[in-house]
Parts: sequence; structure tokens; C-alpha cells
Amino acid sequence: MAERVYLDWNATAPLRPEARAAMIATLDEVGNPSSVHAEGRRAKAIVEQARGQIAEAFGAQASDIVFTSGATEAAALALSGRGFRGSEVEHDAVSSWINTDISAGTDGLVTLNDPAGSTLQFANSETGVIQALPEGLAVSDFTQGFGKVPLAFDWSGVQMGLISAHKLGGPKGIGALVLKRGLDVEAMIKGGGQEMGRRSGTENVAAIAGFGAAAEAAARDLADGVWEDVKKLRNILESLLASGAKETILVGKESQRLPNTSCFAVPGWKGETQVMQMDLAGFAISAGSACSSGKVKASRVLRAMGYDETTAASAVRVSIGPQTTEEQITRFAEVWINHYVRHKRRAA
Amino acid sequence: MAERVYLDWNATAPLRPEARAAMIATLDEVGNPSSVHAEGRRAKAIVEQARGQIAEAFGAQASDIVFTSGATEAAALALSGRGFRGSEVEHDAVSSWINTDISAGTDGLVTLNDPAGSTLQFANSETGVIQALPEGLAVSDFTQGFGKVPLAFDWSGVQMGLISAHKLGGPKGIGALVLKRGLDVEAMIKGGGQEMGRRSGTENVAAIAGFGAAAEAAARDLADGVWEDVKKLRNILESLLASGAKETILVGKESQRLPNTSCFAVPGWKGETQVMQMDLAGFAISAGSACSSGKVKASRVLRAMGYDETTAASAVRVSIGPQTTEEQITRFAEVWINHYVRHKRRAA
Repeated sequence: MAERVYLDWNATAPLRPEARAAMIATLDEVGNPSSVHAEGRRAKAIVEQARGQIAEAFGAQASDIVFTSGATEAAALALSGRGFRGSEVEHDAVSSWINTDISAGTDGLVTLNDPAGSTLQFANSETGVIQALPEGLAVSDFTQGFGKVPLAFDWSGVQMGLISAHKLGGPKGIGALVLKRGLDVEAMIKGGGQEMGRRSGTENVAAIAGFGAAAEAAARDLADGVWEDVKKLRNILESLLASGAKETILVGKESQRLPNTSCFAVPGWKGETQVMQMDLAGFAISAGSACSSGKVKASRVLRAMGYDETTAASAVRVSIGPQTTEEQITRFAEVWINHYVRHKRRAA
Repeated sequence: MAERVYLDWNATAPLRPEARAAMIATLDEVGNPSSVHAEGRRAKAIVEQARGQIAEAFGAQASDIVFTSGATEAAALALSGRGFRGSEVEHDAVSSWINTDISAGTDGLVTLNDPAGSTLQFANSETGVIQALPEGLAVSDFTQGFGKVPLAFDWSGVQMGLISAHKLGGPKGIGALVLKRGLDVEAMIKGGGQEMGRRSGTENVAAIAGFGAAAEAAARDLADGVWEDVKKLRNILESLLASGAKETILVGKESQRLPNTSCFAVPGWKGETQVMQMDLAGFAISAGSACSSGKVKASRVLRAMGYDETTAASAVRVSIGPQTTEEQITRFAEVWINHYVRHKRRAA
């Protein structure tokens, strides 16, 4: 069997070596960050160092970062019980808490009338479409943007931001709610009073260390222009697909997008089928959001953008990263086009 | 400087080598457990294997285990909005959600009139006192008991149990709510529908793998009688302290206790001072709960047991584990008694 090719970075990115090393170094630290003895203080120092790294990378203040078990928990902390509005293009972790009565254009863009009472993602996980965030926006899910495109939370005008480690090469199970200067939030998980009373529970020291190291490395990669190269590969992929299968719809292509994301559909060729065919051929891609417990159904995001049910059920996502090579991309395109030709033959 | 001696296992236990190995092995698995491709399925298999290991060790069914970011989140999931009653001996993560109007005896024991509307911990983190859990109890915090004494959740008659990995040698940042057969719980963290819709968010695969390996190793240690040896050391410690400082109060000594925990007080010699003196001498011990953000104050638990403010502010906890040696214990007792003598001299 051929070597596996992982093209599902938006579902979760490979762990960065810097994060791996930071986590392993931390596993031997026994202390609880809340303990006052030397072991506790050392664990606390690890947490605070990582908080500083993340603040630096995200353009925020360290004291405004509230560690959570991931962006999903951060979303609950930011949104629960607040009755905010938003669009169906939001991730499930966000849309579960809001009135999704705001429509999106076929370009994926969402216009808000009441930013202070609304939530709007920075970038979409399926299409990569990047929104223009209005000043004073209540909540934004930065999960897919953080680490892939330059951004600075403190300049965004957003009240509360959601971030996740494992989308930028940190470990799974850690994320944060980031607050605008001067803002506070009432704890949803109460107890020992950690995170300045905003989120209790013994800190996930190893994962926090990994998050910090990954954020720092991601910022360095960004500054080094690494994602410009990723974007070139993504564009090569889209050219190959479009020329090999003329009817391919490249979703959101006309909008500003994440550099690594391509969402495409051949109406009638089910996304679910494509994912399985590609998986058997050695390529990991996805249809819809990965975060849906193995359920594969018509993309809610594409439906919200006005695509019909058939097209929405035919979309797949390829999302790549700095480790992806041109050889992998061209091989994928070749295999996908072969399957496309077979699909057309069967459908004929 | 002398080698550090870690005597604060109830705050957090050293990571077991089995957990460390399981975590490191998992760090190179890129998949998101919700993804349907091979990488995703492999991540999912890791999660489910660990769930089985924990179920086996805790005497529960795998499908009744809901992974959370720790026992504190599990407590919020089990208790939030339910208006249960309990005692002040409960951990902050539990007492934050309940009416703590039920008193405890000086033996630390709590008697409930309405188990179905109450919560009662299995064992106390500060004193080690083990409760007799009544049949039909709504919620029990098993955090300190799981892995240290034999227990089987399915035989406990408890509706919902809280457990944590890092107290039994697993990583920080992972725990679970365990449900009685047939019981369900409404999600507090919503989104992708992971954990059978009971708790959303990408699974913390590495920490879950570490939890599973640690639980399995803990169960093996228990079966091998390892904690009987720990208990002998604890008893040696208490004999040494009592003979070296006759006024020492050994809290909860008359009750059934965890084998590794000793809570003792010399009224007037502040716990906070003792912790700092012992820390400087190379020993990590604690006063009150570690989970209180560095705050050291009079133990709420001892106050609930009827001890006066001075005694409650003078208590410290030594909690040991299978790696603790007799040499460490006798050395600690010697140093502590030396400081005790100095304290008496100053106070005289």
C-alpha cells in the first residue's frame, strides 16, 4: 500500500515537533499549578510561559487568555445563555448556542446589522472563506484562522475570541477564550477558582505547554511566509482539478480564503463516496465538518451559501499544511480525476 | 540541596510510566476521532480502547463513561442547575453547585436523609476519610478513591460518579462523568455531538490514552496490594509524628481512610507556615486543598468537622504513593519534628 497522504489539516493538524518536545518535557513535572510548593510553582510557571507565547502569537494580553479544554468549551463559555445571532456557516460548537437566522451570500460572506449581539467566525473550516469582522463584534471563532493567516486579536475590535491548539499544530484538548481588555466572563465550570476565577479545574499543564510552543512556532512560520507556499500548492491543486473535471465547483473561490483550504463539488458525486474512495487510495480528506461524530451529510455551510442539496452533499474539502508536498498534491489530483472519470462513466 | 521529596499525591500524582508511554505513542497519531478516514478511525480506536480500560478499572460500562476535561467539569455537568444538597467537606468543584447545609461529624462522616437529592464524596482529599455511600445517591466524587482503594461503580448504587486521571497517575486535563446504566445527561458543552451527544469537542486523544493506561496500571497495583504497603508507611509516619509531638491531632484517624493520606494539626502552628518550612527543607506537602489557586486558608473541611478556626488553620496534609520510601517518611518526620520543636521554643 502506498504511503498515506494527510490532506485534512482543518480537522486536526499534525503535532508540531516543538509542541511534542514541550509536552514530553512537561510530563515529568509532577506539580499541580495551584500548589504553593516548588513543584507547584514550576508547573504554574509552565502554564504562564505558554500563556505568554499564545498572547504574543495571537496579538492579545496574557491576562485576557482563559484556557479551556478546546474551542468548543470556549464557545459555550462565550455564548451560553446570551441569545446571540449568527449564520448557519458557523461551526456546530457555535451554532448550537445562537439564533442562526442571518443568511450568507454564495461567496460565503455574512453581513451583520448588530455586531454587539452577534457572532461571526473569522474563517470557515469547510470553505476557508474569511469574513470581514465588524468592529464591536461580540464573539468570533478564530479557530481556523489562528496560525494560518496574520491576525491580531487586540486590533480586531472583537469582544471574545475562540481559539484551539490542535488546528495550528498543538495538542487536542486545549484551547482558550480570549477576552477584550477590561472584559470579564462568569465561570461555567466552577470550583478551585483557577484561571482568575473564570474557569476552574486543574490546568492541563502538558497540553498548555504544547499549545504555547505550537503557537510560537506557528507565528514564526507565518512570518517566514510558509503559508504563501501552501497557498501556491492549494492553487495548483485547484487548477488541476478544474482542468481535469470541468464541471467542478470551487466553493468560495471568489472570496478571500485561508491559504490551505479547498472545497469543491461535482454535483451528484457524493462527498461521502469521494471520502471513502480517496481513503482507500491513501488520501485523508473530508466531507462537511470533521467534528460531527462520523456523520457525513449535506454540508450545512454550503446550504447556507445557497447551494442546492445535491451540490451540498457532493462537496469535499482538502486542507493542507506546510508538510504537504507538490508531489502529494499532483498525485491526489491524478487519483481524484481518475475516480471522477469512472464516476462519470457509471453515471452515464 | 537535598533531593526533593514529593508528599502531595492527592494534589496530583506523578505520571505513571504506562501513561507516559501511551501518551507519547499517541502524539504521532494525526487523526481527529470524528473523521471517517483511516487516520480518524485510528484515533477513535485509541479513545475507545482507553474507555474500555477505565470502565474495567472503575467497574462500569464503557458506554456509560463520558470523557470531560477533568472531575471539575464532570461535577459541573452532573450538578449544575440541579439544586442538590451536600456537606462542606465536598471539594470546591462540587460545593460550588450545591446547598452545603448538611453537617459532618468530627469523624468526617456525613449522614444523608435524601440520597437521591444529594451528593457525597467517596473520600476526602484533605483527610482521606471514606464515606459509606447510601444506595441511590445522586452524585459521588470518586476522584480521590479511584485507584487507591478497591471499588466498583456499578455496585455502588450511585447515579453519577466523578473521576479524574491525574489523581491516579494519569495526565492532568482529563476525567469523566460516569453514569449509572440507563441514565443520560444533557450536554453542557454542545457542538459536534461527541461522547454520544453528552459532551462535544474534539477528544483529547493523548490524555485519554494516558488515562486508560494509568487506570489499568492502577487497578493492577491495587490487586497486587501495593497500597497496603503505602498504608504501612502512612501509619509509620503518624506514629513518628505523634511520638515526636504529643499534641499533634491526627484528623479522621478513627474513621476508615484512604491508605495514603495523613492530615495533622498542631494548633497554633499555621499550616501555611509549615508548608513553606517543609518546602524549603525539600518536602512538598499541602495545607487545605491544592485546588484553590494558591490560596492557603483555614481548612473548610476541618471547620465542617467541628474543629475550631485555629486548628483548621494549622492542619497540613501529607499524601504519599507507591513511590514513597520509608527513608523519605522518616526523614520528613525528623525534619518536621525539628521544626515543631523550634516552633514551640518560639511560642514559649
